[in-house]
Amino acid sequence: MAGTQVSIRIDLENGGRIGPGKIALLEAIRNTGSITAAARSIHMSYRRAWLLVDELNKLLSEPVVTTTTGGARGGSTTLTPVGEKTVALYHLIEARTRAAARTEFQTFRTSMRR
Amino acid sequence: MAGTQVSIRIDLENGGRIGPGKIALLEAIRNTGSITAAARSIHMSYRRAWLLVDELNKLLSEPVVTTTTGGARGGSTTLTPVGEKTVALYHLIEARTRAAARTEFQTFRTSMRR
Repeated sequence: MAGTQVSIRIDLENGGRIGPGKIALLEAIRNTGSITAAARSIHMSYRRAWLLVDELNKLLSEPVVTTTTGGARGGSTTLTPVGEKTVALYHLIEARTRAAARTEFQTFRTSMRR
Repeated sequence: MAGTQVSIRIDLENGGRIGPGKIALLEAIRNTGSITAAARSIHMSYRRAWLLVDELNKLLSEPVVTTTTGGARGGSTTLTPVGEKTVALYHLIEARTRAAARTEFQTFRTSMRR
């Protein structure tokens, strides 16, 4: 069970959820500079990507992405400080969770695989 | 953000996933003694409950529930030792995760709500 892993989902008190899908999308936007390219890079439809970004923007106190229009490259989309903080926080909690769960996975393996 | 909480999902190396829904179902089966009553108590369709139990039985090395037929009460369904271990392990990792995440949620609150 070496490949067993734990994922986390943050359930906000306003009913919003932040899980691996939304975080992967934000990171893809950071890497590609556009929602269209980000969606493509993680095999997600543009429509779904746009809906998830819109949901995140409404969940948090400030938008998670910002788009500059015009310019030679036709504008680009980047993460805002709140977007960056959300990604960083998620990975921090994820890392702590994985460290904490390591011992229990070992227990799981020995008790489940006989 | 006092109500903010973290949920975990265990991704097994065989592709199986164990998250809050399956664990709630197992606990409901333990409490009610039947898949039908368990599904009703957590507002899940019987079909979905049956499919989730079947999936868990196939994911793990042994079945998670066992059904005794006949008798005055018409039989009952209970968790097997592997079913009980799965529930206990899930809550152990969940508790460790929540303890580890507490500090980070505090950071989240101060940075997000202005």
